[in-house]
Amino acid sequence: MKAKLLLLLAGIAASAQTGDGPAFNASGELTMPKYREWVYLSSGLGMTYGPAGNGDPENPRFDNVFVNPSSYRAFVETGRWPDKTMFVLEIRQSHGKGSINNGGRYQSNVVSVEAAVKDERRFPQRWAYFGFGRGEKATAAPATSSCNSCHSQNAAVENTFVQFYPTLLEVATEKKTLNPAYVAKSAGQ
Amino acid sequence: MKAKLLLLLAGIAASAQTGDGPAFNASGELTMPKYREWVYLSSGLGMTYGPAGNGDPENPRFDNVFVNPSSYRAFVETGRWPDKTMFVLEIRQSHGKGSINNGGRYQSNVVSVEAAVKDERRFPQRWAYFGFGRGEKATAAPATSSCNSCHSQNAAVENTFVQFYPTLLEVATEKKTLNPAYVAKSAGQ
Repeated sequence: MKAKLLLLLAGIAASAQTGDGPAFNASGELTMPKYREWVYLSSGLGMTYGPAGNGDPENPRFDNVFVNPSSYRAFVETGRWPDKTMFVLEIRQSHGKGSINNGGRYQSNVVSVEAAVKDERRFPQRWAYFGFGRGEKATAAPATSSCNSCHSQNAAVENTFVQFYPTLLEVATEKKTLNPAYVAKSAGQ
Repeated sequence: MKAKLLLLLAGIAASAQTGDGPAFNASGELTMPKYREWVYLSSGLGMTYGPAGNGDPENPRFDNVFVNPSSYRAFVETGRWPDKTMFVLEIRQSHGKGSINNGGRYQSNVVSVEAAVKDERRFPQRWAYFGFGRGEKATAAPATSSCNSCHSQNAAVENTFVQFYPTLLEVATEKKTLNPAYVAKSAGQ
Protein backbone atom coordinates (compact mmCIF):
# COMPACT_ATOMS: atom_id res chain seq x y z
CA MET A 1 0.00 0.00 0.00
CA LYS A 2 2.79 2.39 0.93
CA ALA A 3 4.64 1.60 -2.31
CA LYS A 4 1.47 2.17 -4.31
CA LEU A 5 0.95 5.60 -2.73
CA LEU A 6 4.57 6.58 -3.35
CA LEU A 7 4.16 5.55 -6.99
CA LEU A 8 1.04 7.71 -7.21
CA LEU A 9 2.92 10.63 -5.65
CA ALA A 10 5.76 10.24 -8.15
CA GLY A 11 3.20 10.14 -10.97
CA ILE A 12 1.61 13.41 -9.82
CA ALA A 13 5.02 15.09 -9.61
CA ALA A 14 6.03 13.84 -13.09
CA SER A 15 2.79 14.89 -14.80
CA ALA A 16 3.17 18.38 -13.35
CA GLN A 17 6.68 18.77 -14.72
CA THR A 18 6.68 17.14 -18.17
CA GLY A 19 4.48 16.26 -21.11
CA ASP A 20 3.39 19.85 -21.84
CA GLY A 21 5.45 20.18 -25.05
CA PRO A 22 4.76 19.17 -28.69
CA ALA A 23 2.55 16.15 -29.47
CA PHE A 24 2.59 14.39 -32.84
CA ASN A 25 -0.11 12.04 -34.13
CA ALA A 26 0.51 8.64 -35.77
CA SER A 27 0.96 10.33 -39.17
CA GLY A 28 3.75 12.51 -37.75
CA GLU A 29 1.62 15.67 -37.76
CA LEU A 30 1.93 18.22 -34.96
CA THR A 31 -1.36 18.53 -33.08
CA MET A 32 -2.79 21.77 -31.69
CA PRO A 33 -2.17 22.14 -27.93
CA LYS A 34 -4.30 24.09 -25.40
CA TYR A 35 -1.77 26.89 -25.78
CA ARG A 36 -4.01 29.57 -24.27
CA GLU A 37 -3.13 28.07 -20.86
CA TRP A 38 0.62 28.20 -21.65
CA VAL A 39 2.99 30.98 -20.62
CA TYR A 40 2.52 34.22 -22.58
CA LEU A 41 5.69 35.86 -23.88
CA SER A 42 4.59 39.02 -25.71
CA SER A 43 2.44 40.60 -28.42
CA GLY A 44 3.05 42.89 -31.36
CA LEU A 45 0.68 44.87 -33.58
CA GLY A 46 1.25 45.09 -37.35
CA MET A 47 4.82 43.81 -37.09
CA THR A 48 6.41 43.74 -40.54
CA TYR A 49 9.54 41.77 -41.36
CA GLY A 50 9.77 42.71 -45.05
CA PRO A 51 9.68 46.30 -46.37
CA ALA A 52 7.59 48.59 -44.10
CA GLY A 53 5.11 49.21 -46.97
CA ASN A 54 4.11 45.53 -46.87
CA GLY A 55 2.08 46.07 -43.69
CA ASP A 56 -1.62 46.98 -43.81
CA PRO A 57 -1.95 50.11 -41.63
CA GLU A 58 -5.75 50.12 -41.89
CA ASN A 59 -6.11 46.54 -40.63
CA PRO A 60 -3.05 45.70 -38.54
CA ARG A 61 -2.97 42.27 -36.92
CA PHE A 62 -1.95 41.32 -33.42
CA ASP A 63 0.44 38.44 -32.84
CA ASN A 64 0.50 36.73 -29.41
CA VAL A 65 3.34 34.36 -28.51
CA PHE A 66 3.06 31.46 -26.02
CA VAL A 67 5.54 28.76 -24.90
CA ASN A 68 4.96 25.47 -23.03
CA PRO A 69 5.31 26.07 -19.25
CA SER A 70 8.10 23.57 -18.45
CA SER A 71 10.33 25.05 -21.17
CA TYR A 72 9.59 28.57 -19.91
CA ARG A 73 10.70 27.58 -16.42
CA ALA A 74 13.86 25.97 -17.82
CA PHE A 75 14.65 29.16 -19.79
CA VAL A 76 14.23 31.35 -16.72
CA GLU A 77 16.78 29.12 -14.93
CA THR A 78 19.34 28.74 -17.74
CA GLY A 79 18.65 31.19 -20.59
CA ARG A 80 18.42 28.21 -22.99
CA TRP A 81 15.61 26.13 -24.50
CA PRO A 82 15.40 22.45 -23.57
CA ASP A 83 14.64 19.82 -26.19
CA LYS A 84 10.83 19.51 -26.82
CA THR A 85 10.23 23.23 -26.51
CA MET A 86 7.20 24.47 -28.43
CA PHE A 87 6.25 28.05 -29.34
CA VAL A 88 2.82 29.08 -30.60
CA LEU A 89 2.23 32.30 -32.58
CA GLU A 90 -1.43 33.29 -32.62
CA ILE A 91 -2.44 35.93 -35.17
CA ARG A 92 -5.64 37.92 -34.53
CA GLN A 93 -7.56 40.68 -36.24
CA SER A 94 -7.74 44.03 -34.48
CA HIS A 95 -10.61 46.44 -33.89
CA GLY A 96 -10.52 50.19 -33.21
CA LYS A 97 -13.68 51.80 -31.78
CA GLY A 98 -15.90 49.52 -29.73
CA SER A 99 -17.62 49.60 -26.33
CA ILE A 100 -15.76 52.24 -24.24
CA ASN A 101 -12.68 52.20 -26.50
CA ASN A 102 -12.28 55.37 -28.58
CA GLY A 103 -8.75 54.99 -29.89
CA GLY A 104 -6.00 52.42 -30.37
CA ARG A 105 -6.64 48.76 -31.19
CA TYR A 106 -7.85 45.66 -29.35
CA GLN A 107 -7.98 41.98 -30.36
CA SER A 108 -10.74 40.06 -32.09
CA ASN A 109 -10.93 36.85 -34.20
CA VAL A 110 -8.07 34.42 -34.80
CA VAL A 111 -6.68 34.64 -38.35
CA SER A 112 -4.19 31.76 -38.09
CA VAL A 113 -1.90 29.89 -35.73
CA GLU A 114 1.75 28.95 -36.33
CA ALA A 115 4.25 27.00 -34.26
CA ALA A 116 7.97 26.33 -33.81
CA VAL A 117 9.26 23.10 -32.24
CA LYS A 118 12.71 22.12 -31.02
CA ASP A 119 13.16 18.34 -31.35
CA GLU A 120 16.73 17.17 -31.93
CA ARG A 121 15.79 13.56 -32.68
CA ARG A 122 12.98 14.38 -35.11
CA PHE A 123 14.56 17.32 -36.97
CA PRO A 124 18.25 17.30 -38.04
CA GLN A 125 18.12 21.14 -38.08
CA ARG A 126 16.76 21.02 -34.46
CA TRP A 127 13.99 23.61 -34.93
CA ALA A 128 11.03 23.14 -37.29
CA TYR A 129 8.17 25.47 -38.29
CA PHE A 130 4.47 24.73 -38.72
CA GLY A 131 1.40 26.54 -40.06
CA PHE A 132 -1.89 25.37 -38.53
CA GLY A 133 -3.95 27.97 -40.37
CA ARG A 134 -7.35 27.55 -38.69
CA GLY A 135 -6.89 23.76 -38.39
CA GLU A 136 -5.92 21.38 -35.61
CA LYS A 137 -2.83 19.70 -37.12
CA ALA A 138 0.17 20.71 -39.22
CA THR A 139 3.21 19.28 -40.99
CA ALA A 140 6.70 20.76 -40.70
CA ALA A 141 7.90 23.23 -43.34
CA PRO A 142 10.98 21.85 -45.16
CA ALA A 143 14.35 22.59 -43.53
CA THR A 144 15.10 24.89 -46.49
CA SER A 145 12.05 27.13 -45.77
CA SER A 146 12.37 30.88 -45.28
CA CYS A 147 11.16 30.37 -41.68
CA ASN A 148 14.25 28.28 -40.91
CA SER A 149 16.71 30.65 -42.60
CA CYS A 150 15.25 33.84 -41.08
CA HIS A 151 15.09 32.39 -37.55
CA SER A 152 18.60 30.93 -37.70
CA GLN A 153 20.08 34.16 -39.06
CA ASN A 154 18.28 36.81 -37.00
CA ALA A 155 17.03 35.38 -33.72
CA ALA A 156 18.53 36.55 -30.39
CA VAL A 157 18.68 33.13 -28.62
CA GLU A 158 19.08 29.92 -30.62
CA ASN A 159 16.33 30.20 -33.27
CA THR A 160 13.94 32.28 -31.13
CA PHE A 161 13.15 35.99 -31.39
CA VAL A 162 13.84 36.73 -27.73
CA GLN A 163 14.61 40.33 -28.77
CA PHE A 164 10.80 40.79 -28.94
CA TYR A 165 10.04 39.12 -25.53
CA PRO A 166 11.15 41.68 -22.94
CA THR A 167 11.01 39.41 -19.87
CA LEU A 168 13.17 36.74 -21.58
CA LEU A 169 15.61 39.26 -23.11
CA GLU A 170 16.48 40.26 -19.54
CA VAL A 171 17.12 36.60 -18.62
CA ALA A 172 19.27 35.88 -21.71
CA THR A 173 21.28 39.07 -21.23
CA GLU A 174 21.99 38.15 -17.61
CA LYS A 175 22.79 34.48 -18.41
CA LYS A 176 24.90 35.55 -21.44
CA THR A 177 23.09 33.19 -23.82
CA LEU A 178 22.42 35.72 -26.63
CA ASN A 179 23.64 34.53 -30.05
CA PRO A 180 26.99 36.22 -30.91
CA ALA A 181 25.65 37.24 -34.36
CA TYR A 182 22.69 39.00 -32.69
CA VAL A 183 24.96 40.79 -30.22
CA ALA A 184 27.24 41.98 -33.05
CA LYS A 185 24.28 43.26 -35.13
CA SER A 186 22.70 45.02 -32.12
CA ALA A 187 26.00 46.79 -31.39
CA GLY A 188 26.07 48.07 -34.97
CA GLN A 189 22.50 49.42 -34.97
CA MET B 1 2.40 6.27 7.78
CA LYS B 2 -0.46 5.64 5.39
CA ALA B 3 -2.44 8.54 6.90
CA LYS B 4 0.58 10.81 6.59
CA LEU B 5 0.97 10.01 2.88
CA LEU B 6 -2.72 10.56 2.25
CA LEU B 7 -2.46 13.92 3.99
CA LEU B 8 0.51 14.81 1.79
CA LEU B 9 -1.44 13.77 -1.32
CA ALA B 10 -4.40 15.91 -0.26
CA GLY B 11 -2.01 18.81 0.30
CA ILE B 12 -0.58 18.51 -3.19
CA ALA B 13 -4.06 18.38 -4.74
CA ALA B 14 -5.18 21.42 -2.74
CA SER B 15 -2.14 23.55 -3.59
CA ALA B 16 -2.63 22.79 -7.29
CA GLN B 17 -6.25 23.96 -7.23
CA THR B 18 -6.29 26.94 -4.92
CA GLY B 19 -4.12 29.62 -3.42
CA ASP B 20 -3.21 31.26 -6.74
CA GLY B 21 -5.41 34.33 -6.20
CA PRO B 22 -4.81 37.62 -4.33
CA ALA B 23 -2.48 37.75 -1.31
CA PHE B 24 -2.58 40.55 1.26
CA ASN B 25 0.20 41.37 3.74
CA ALA B 26 -0.30 42.07 7.47
CA SER B 27 -0.99 45.75 6.70
CA GLY B 28 -3.82 44.76 4.35
CA GLU B 29 -1.86 45.68 1.22
CA LEU B 30 -2.19 43.59 -1.93
CA THR B 31 1.17 42.03 -2.85
CA MET B 32 2.47 41.56 -6.40
CA PRO B 33 1.97 37.99 -7.66
CA LYS B 34 4.10 36.17 -10.27
CA TYR B 35 1.43 37.08 -12.80
CA ARG B 36 3.58 36.41 -15.86
CA GLU B 37 2.91 32.71 -15.21
CA TRP B 38 -0.86 33.28 -15.00
CA VAL B 39 -3.33 32.85 -17.84
CA TYR B 40 -3.11 35.57 -20.50
CA LEU B 41 -6.42 37.09 -21.63
CA SER B 42 -5.56 39.70 -24.28
CA SER B 43 -3.62 42.82 -25.20
CA GLY B 44 -4.44 46.21 -26.65
CA LEU B 45 -2.29 48.97 -28.12
CA GLY B 46 -3.02 52.63 -27.37
CA MET B 47 -6.50 51.88 -26.02
CA THR B 48 -8.25 55.12 -25.05
CA TYR B 49 -11.29 55.26 -22.80
CA GLY B 50 -11.74 59.03 -22.76
CA PRO B 51 -11.90 61.21 -25.92
CA ALA B 52 -9.82 59.70 -28.77
CA GLY B 53 -7.52 62.76 -28.75
CA ASN B 54 -6.32 61.79 -25.25
CA GLY B 55 -4.17 58.97 -26.66
CA ASP B 56 -0.54 59.52 -27.67
CA PRO B 57 -0.30 58.19 -31.26
CA GLU B 58 3.50 58.65 -31.38
CA ASN B 59 4.08 56.56 -28.24
CA PRO B 60 1.18 54.17 -27.83
CA ARG B 61 1.34 51.75 -24.92
CA PHE B 62 0.52 48.08 -24.85
CA ASP B 63 -1.68 46.66 -22.09
CA ASN B 64 -1.52 42.92 -21.29
CA VAL B 65 -4.19 41.31 -19.10
CA PHE B 66 -3.66 38.20 -16.94
CA VAL B 67 -5.92 36.31 -14.52
CA ASN B 68 -5.12 33.72 -11.83
CA PRO B 69 -5.34 30.19 -13.35
CA SER B 70 -7.95 28.64 -11.02
CA SER B 71 -10.37 31.52 -11.67
CA TYR B 72 -9.76 31.22 -15.42
CA ARG B 73 -10.68 27.53 -15.30
CA ALA B 74 -13.80 28.32 -13.26
CA PHE B 75 -14.84 30.98 -15.80
CA VAL B 76 -14.41 28.58 -18.73
CA GLU B 77 -16.75 26.16 -16.90
CA THR B 78 -19.39 28.65 -15.73
CA GLY B 79 -18.96 32.05 -17.42
CA ARG B 80 -18.68 33.61 -13.93
CA TRP B 81 -15.82 34.73 -11.67
CA PRO B 82 -15.40 32.92 -8.35
CA ASP B 83 -14.59 34.85 -5.18
CA LYS B 84 -10.82 35.57 -4.87
CA THR B 85 -10.40 36.22 -8.57
CA MET B 86 -7.51 38.57 -9.41
CA PHE B 87 -6.80 40.39 -12.68
CA VAL B 88 -3.48 42.04 -13.50
CA LEU B 89 -3.15 44.78 -16.13
CA GLU B 90 0.46 45.27 -17.23
CA ILE B 91 1.21 48.44 -19.20
CA ARG B 92 4.33 48.48 -21.41
CA GLN B 93 6.03 50.93 -23.73
CA SER B 94 6.10 50.07 -27.43
CA HIS B 95 8.88 50.25 -30.02
CA GLY B 96 8.62 50.54 -33.82
CA LYS B 97 11.72 49.72 -35.87
CA GLY B 98 14.16 47.29 -34.28
CA SER B 99 15.99 44.12 -35.29
CA ILE B 100 14.10 42.66 -38.28
CA ASN B 101 10.93 44.66 -37.55
CA ASN B 102 10.29 47.47 -40.06
CA GLY B 103 6.71 48.43 -39.22
CA GLY B 104 4.08 48.12 -36.50
CA ARG B 105 4.91 48.03 -32.78
CA TYR B 106 6.35 45.53 -30.30
CA GLN B 107 6.62 45.59 -26.50
CA SER B 108 9.41 46.95 -24.30
CA ASN B 109 9.68 48.18 -20.68
CA VAL B 110 6.94 48.02 -18.06
CA VAL B 111 5.40 51.44 -17.32
CA SER B 112 3.07 50.32 -14.50
CA VAL B 113 0.98 47.45 -13.19
CA GLU B 114 -2.63 47.61 -11.99
CA ALA B 115 -4.95 44.99 -10.50
CA ALA B 116 -8.60 44.17 -9.82
CA VAL B 117 -9.64 41.78 -7.03
CA LYS B 118 -12.99 40.17 -6.25
CA ASP B 119 -13.26 39.53 -2.52
CA GLU B 120 -16.75 39.60 -1.07
CA ARG B 121 -15.66 39.50 2.56
CA ARG B 122 -13.01 42.21 2.26
CA PHE B 123 -14.81 44.66 -0.05
CA PRO B 124 -18.55 45.49 0.38
CA GLN B 125 -18.61 46.47 -3.33
CA ARG B 126 -17.14 43.02 -4.15
CA TRP B 127 -14.52 44.27 -6.66
CA ALA B 128 -11.63 46.58 -5.74
CA TYR B 129 -8.95 48.29 -7.86
CA PHE B 130 -5.23 48.72 -7.18
CA GLY B 131 -2.32 50.62 -8.72
CA PHE B 132 1.09 49.04 -8.11
CA GLY B 133 2.93 51.59 -10.26
CA ARG B 134 6.41 50.02 -10.41
CA GLY B 135 6.19 48.76 -6.82
CA GLU B 136 5.45 45.43 -5.16
CA LYS B 137 2.40 46.32 -3.05
CA ALA B 138 -0.75 48.43 -3.36
CA THR B 139 -3.77 49.62 -1.41
CA ALA B 140 -7.33 49.53 -2.75
CA ALA B 141 -8.76 52.61 -4.43
CA PRO B 142 -11.85 53.88 -2.51
CA ALA B 143 -15.17 52.31 -3.48
CA THR B 144 -16.13 55.70 -4.95
CA SER B 145 -13.20 55.72 -7.41
CA SER B 146 -13.71 56.16 -11.15
CA CYS B 147 -12.34 52.62 -11.61
CA ASN B 148 -15.28 51.20 -9.67
CA SER B 149 -17.93 53.27 -11.44
CA CYS B 150 -16.56 52.68 -14.95
CA HIS B 151 -16.17 48.92 -14.44
CA SER B 152 -19.59 48.51 -12.85
CA GLN B 153 -21.31 50.56 -15.59
CA ASN B 154 -19.58 49.32 -18.74
CA ALA B 155 -18.11 45.85 -18.22
CA ALA B 156 -19.54 42.86 -20.12
CA VAL B 157 -19.45 40.29 -17.26
CA GLU B 158 -19.75 41.40 -13.61
CA ASN B 159 -17.12 44.17 -13.34
CA THR B 160 -14.76 42.74 -16.00
CA PHE B 161 -14.18 43.96 -19.57
CA VAL B 162 -14.77 40.57 -21.16
CA GLN B 163 -15.76 42.44 -24.35
CA PHE B 164 -12.00 42.93 -24.92
CA TYR B 165 -11.00 39.26 -24.20
CA PRO B 166 -12.14 37.32 -27.28
CA THR B 167 -11.75 33.79 -25.85
CA LEU B 168 -13.83 34.68 -22.76
CA LEU B 169 -16.45 36.64 -24.70
CA GLU B 170 -17.24 33.38 -26.54
CA VAL B 171 -17.66 31.57 -23.20
CA ALA B 172 -19.88 34.26 -21.64
CA THR B 173 -22.05 34.47 -24.75
CA GLU B 174 -22.55 30.70 -24.74
CA LYS B 175 -23.18 30.54 -20.97
CA LYS B 176 -25.47 33.63 -21.15
CA THR B 177 -23.64 35.44 -18.35
CA LEU B 178 -23.23 38.80 -20.12
CA ASN B 179 -24.52 41.75 -18.06
CA PRO B 180 -27.99 42.83 -19.31
CA ALA B 181 -26.85 46.48 -19.51
CA TYR B 182 -23.91 45.46 -21.73
CA VAL B 183 -26.17 43.40 -24.01
CA ALA B 184 -28.63 46.30 -24.34
CA LYS B 185 -25.84 48.81 -25.18
CA SER B 186 -24.24 46.42 -27.70
CA ALA B 187 -27.57 45.95 -29.49
CA GLY B 188 -27.87 49.72 -29.81
CA GLN B 189 -24.37 50.27 -31.26
